[in-house]
Amino acid sequence: MPKPLIALDWGTTRARAFLIGEDGRVMDRRIADQGIQSVPAGGFPAAFEAIAGDFLRRRPDAAIVLAGMVGSRNGWVEAPYVACPASIEALADAGIAVTLEDGTRATVLPGLSWDDGAFDVMRGEETLIVGLGLNEGIACLPGTHSKWVEVRAGRITRFASFMTGEIYGLLRQHSILARLAEEPSGDDASTGAARGFAAAARPAGLLNAAFAARTEVLAGRMGGGAVGPYLSALLVGQEIAGVQALFGRPATVHLVADGALAASYGAAFETAGLPFQITTPEDAFVAGVKRLAARLVA
Amino acid sequence: MPKPLIALDWGTTRARAFLIGEDGRVMDRRIADQGIQSVPAGGFPAAFEAIAGDFLRRRPDAAIVLAGMVGSRNGWVEAPYVACPASIEALADAGIAVTLEDGTRATVLPGLSWDDGAFDVMRGEETLIVGLGLNEGIACLPGTHSKWVEVRAGRITRFASFMTGEIYGLLRQHSILARLAEEPSGDDASTGAARGFAAAARPAGLLNAAFAARTEVLAGRMGGGAVGPYLSALLVGQEIAGVQALFGRPATVHLVADGALAASYGAAFETAGLPFQITTPEDAFVAGVKRLAARLVA
Repeated sequence: MPKPLIALDWGTTRARAFLIGEDGRVMDRRIADQGIQSVPAGGFPAAFEAIAGDFLRRRPDAAIVLAGMVGSRNGWVEAPYVACPASIEALADAGIAVTLEDGTRATVLPGLSWDDGAFDVMRGEETLIVGLGLNEGIACLPGTHSKWVEVRAGRITRFASFMTGEIYGLLRQHSILARLAEEPSGDDASTGAARGFAAAARPAGLLNAAFAARTEVLAGRMGGGAVGPYLSALLVGQEIAGVQALFGRPATVHLVADGALAASYGAAFETAGLPFQITTPEDAFVAGVKRLAARLVA
Repeated sequence: MPKPLIALDWGTTRARAFLIGEDGRVMDRRIADQGIQSVPAGGFPAAFEAIAGDFLRRRPDAAIVLAGMVGSRNGWVEAPYVACPASIEALADAGIAVTLEDGTRATVLPGLSWDDGAFDVMRGEETLIVGLGLNEGIACLPGTHSKWVEVRAGRITRFASFMTGEIYGLLRQHSILARLAEEPSGDDASTGAARGFAAAARPAGLLNAAFAARTEVLAGRMGGGAVGPYLSALLVGQEIAGVQALFGRPATVHLVADGALAASYGAAFETAGLPFQITTPEDAFVAGVKRLAARLVA
């Protein structure tokens, strides 16, 4: 890499900032609360200064790349979605230049869209996918709105979003099941997960299998502590089934996750007999932004 | 019918009370707020008096039948679930006698359970099913937790619950989609319903198709007013697909509903090419309780 790099994964509620040296190593990192929803109109140069101004003073020669919702309609500047199939070059070339307070230029990366009759979009995840360096494969980025992404011949060909994390939270916290659910103890986690995965394969579907969490507890077959693990396994199982209906069965799932999500998706893939490899979101982002920056400054 | 009948559909939050004459006609009806959750321990005789004591004074010779959550663990007395397949006689015979303030006896009807690996239960809906007078058929009772019920040779053989109404409410009111959703106007209802039904058949499943409500609006293909109709049609479509996977395709759906639910499920059945007949919940309940009472007093 010819130059150092300041890279922000700038989302709705938070920004993650990295200072990356010429050798490609992360020299400094920071998580800031200045998500784009907290930035007033015209306030992005000042917000950048607050988040990462000191990085720039340390390395005034750095390239600056901004990924995520900062490129949305409500962000610094709208960087229109690049339609799939999309190459790394196409992503980099669709970056939009903005100017910092001191006149330095930065690049706002675009998101991706895919349209197969239903329209789907992502912003920020495309950079993590680039960071995986896949030539062929299927990647999974679990979360509030999980993304599954297909890469062929080095291009991002298709992807799909799943409301898994959000619907889990709604059911666990706000549905009739919330009244039955307790903190897991003993073998609640394994019992709930096993029953939830089994329920994901039942013919009547999610709306029926979710209700069964209640009746299994009322029937004394499952403790209240198993309700959360049951719902998690049911929803992840449905997500995996949906992905396979869409993309076929992956040879390996490239899972971009850490912590509890890596554990729960890893367990789901083991149960489903799907080989998988884990990359942390930070590693994927840093690798992705370096690859995109190399194209930008080339 | 040899005697008049006082019948209560006594649920968690409400009680519906009917006074039915010897000729089988409803002479009086009332909806009361004394659902079982508002009745203190030992307070059921007094609650009955408040809800329907005047019915009994008008017709002191009436048989008294109580259906619904009043027969649950938190009700007046627990009338254990009757396991499917269940005949009308088995339901009536499992009624439990209770005593009113003046010593008059009343019968608390049981609910139904079905166990095919997952456990499912109902309380109250069984009385409406009996009221349909089916010998063979599939009935649909839509709502917060929709019930689909199979009747063969006059017995209730199987049933399944779907969290359709509750998950609709969670998505419409509390999810990220709530921020986009507006009151339907113009052709929002028809556009949303058409897209939602189509989405229900997409291979990636509910978690993916629900998210598409957001992206379809962001892409300008659907107005915010279409979000609610989209979600409703998507969820009802998924429910219908689940039922067909479970019970096969019904020749006719016996739909027990009125108002908006009758309209939205009726529209869904038309789109799916499923013939259907509508019975109102009141008509089904009154007919069912009369049939069960005839067995009780026989």
